[in-house]
Amino acid sequence: MNYIKVFAPATVANVSCGFDIFGFAIEEPGDIVEIRRRDEPGIVIKDIFGDDGRLPRKAEKNAVTGVMLHLLKHLGITDFGCEVTLHKNMPLGSGMGSSAASAVAGVVAINELLDCPLSRADLLPFAMEGERIASGSAHADNVGPALLGGFVIIRSYAPLDVFSIPVPGDLFCTLVHPDIEINTKDARYILRDEVSLKNTISQMGNVAGLVAGLMMEDYDLIGRSMVDVIIEPVRSILIPDFNLVKQAALDHGALGCSISGSGPSMFALSRGVENAKKVGEVMKATFANAGIEATSHVSLINKGGPVVLDKN
Amino acid sequence: MNYIKVFAPATVANVSCGFDIFGFAIEEPGDIVEIRRRDEPGIVIKDIFGDDGRLPRKAEKNAVTGVMLHLLKHLGITDFGCEVTLHKNMPLGSGMGSSAASAVAGVVAINELLDCPLSRADLLPFAMEGERIASGSAHADNVGPALLGGFVIIRSYAPLDVFSIPVPGDLFCTLVHPDIEINTKDARYILRDEVSLKNTISQMGNVAGLVAGLMMEDYDLIGRSMVDVIIEPVRSILIPDFNLVKQAALDHGALGCSISGSGPSMFALSRGVENAKKVGEVMKATFANAGIEATSHVSLINKGGPVVLDKN
Repeated sequence: MNYIKVFAPATVANVSCGFDIFGFAIEEPGDIVEIRRRDEPGIVIKDIFGDDGRLPRKAEKNAVTGVMLHLLKHLGITDFGCEVTLHKNMPLGSGMGSSAASAVAGVVAINELLDCPLSRADLLPFAMEGERIASGSAHADNVGPALLGGFVIIRSYAPLDVFSIPVPGDLFCTLVHPDIEINTKDARYILRDEVSLKNTISQMGNVAGLVAGLMMEDYDLIGRSMVDVIIEPVRSILIPDFNLVKQAALDHGALGCSISGSGPSMFALSRGVENAKKVGEVMKATFANAGIEATSHVSLINKGGPVVLDKN
Repeated sequence: MNYIKVFAPATVANVSCGFDIFGFAIEEPGDIVEIRRRDEPGIVIKDIFGDDGRLPRKAEKNAVTGVMLHLLKHLGITDFGCEVTLHKNMPLGSGMGSSAASAVAGVVAINELLDCPLSRADLLPFAMEGERIASGSAHADNVGPALLGGFVIIRSYAPLDVFSIPVPGDLFCTLVHPDIEINTKDARYILRDEVSLKNTISQMGNVAGLVAGLMMEDYDLIGRSMVDVIIEPVRSILIPDFNLVKQAALDHGALGCSISGSGPSMFALSRGVENAKKVGEVMKATFANAGIEATSHVSLINKGGPVVLDKN
């Protein structure tokens, strides 16, 4: 095989009460990585589309190629050479798992081109390395669902324990991206290091309720459990008119609504595609009232994860 | 109907990572309440067996009869008269949900005698009132499972949102009661009011893992998720040789082991009854090495809750 083209999906991390432990993949948008072998050893970046020139072009500093180099080193492969093209189909720093989609597409692509020395699940620590290169922190709540698909629980980081759970068939995500930017490091920085025991217990109850609601296909319980008393009250101040946008979603039938990742994107979950579309419209309209342009995507939970689009 | 006799089961509250939000009922032991109508209005306590004379004999101060008075008041019934006999089949302050079993048996009994004006689920706030009378705090993690049966999640206290989830058919509980006593109020008092965000995230991951493990019948995941980084490290110092007893259980195949309620009882979960019995033996033997006598019970998760034993 000399050439491969892989898609990996956008993801919603944190998911209301599930800070750092929940994430899910959606069907679109997503990033695409193409790799073509070349005779000389070493990885070079041929092109990056859709990043307005903002991503590093040096292989070891870019998350996608950095992850590939990391995997090659782990496998003891020194003579491999390729050129890489990255198609960014979502904005950087959007809270839609942009760097995770790129890193996952990259590591899945090179693994396939090498005839799959590792299973998809075993690629997770390498994809996490991409998050470390991009944001300074090797979290798994975007790369986990981007790689595995579905609704993912990160039970533990040390040792790494990540798995997906079933979700109801009629559960749709509305992902709305307002045209403002939040730096992930800033969004982490404003969080408090300590949480009251009372709020910890509330959050645990909602975490338990959300897992049970998803697995029992109890849409009401899913909605009642989408309450975040720890992170959302702090981070939402970075998103203009957050409370109005959230209330508009809830008023129009969303089960719940919160920040996607560290923002500024917001997501809502709804029962049925029509409801999810309507929720997207009212969220965009509410942002528009504040003079902020926004785009929206409506999607089922993506159960498959990355897709090989082409190879030869 | 002039007479009724109701059994309500012992319960394990807190359940490792699930402080204040998880509890489950076991099949035995449990408390029994008998009520016989009498002509004069008012509730009197006829007899209490098995409490060594320690429980209040005045109807309004005793959890069982206090709960009955509370229910009668709510229903606007002023002319009802009965005499109550309580059979305590588990030690007070044991961490086995002793006061919850009594209160639930009492409130179910009087509701049945009145031809069920309320559903079982609607009795929960009244049973919680029994916990408030007994311990000063109206928690639901013992009365919830004692009343509803099964493995119970308390998603929220305000508003009250309590439900049970399915559990694997081969999951057995070993409940070991060492002959020492801990006061519930003391056990609450030693807890810190603040939790680090890091520990909150760990605990949330384990809460999510335990719910998913129970519902997916994944015994390994149940075991990996039975990790409590917040409460157990503090409360376990009140139980002599806690770490040795826990390690003995894990070394002999228990999926996990922690404090039952606020202690001093400890519980372990195992796959299969034989394993659960062996775990009980080694836990008792380890307590015996520290000069502490202990008793043990092995049981499936009780799915039915209270049982009407007799009526006429």
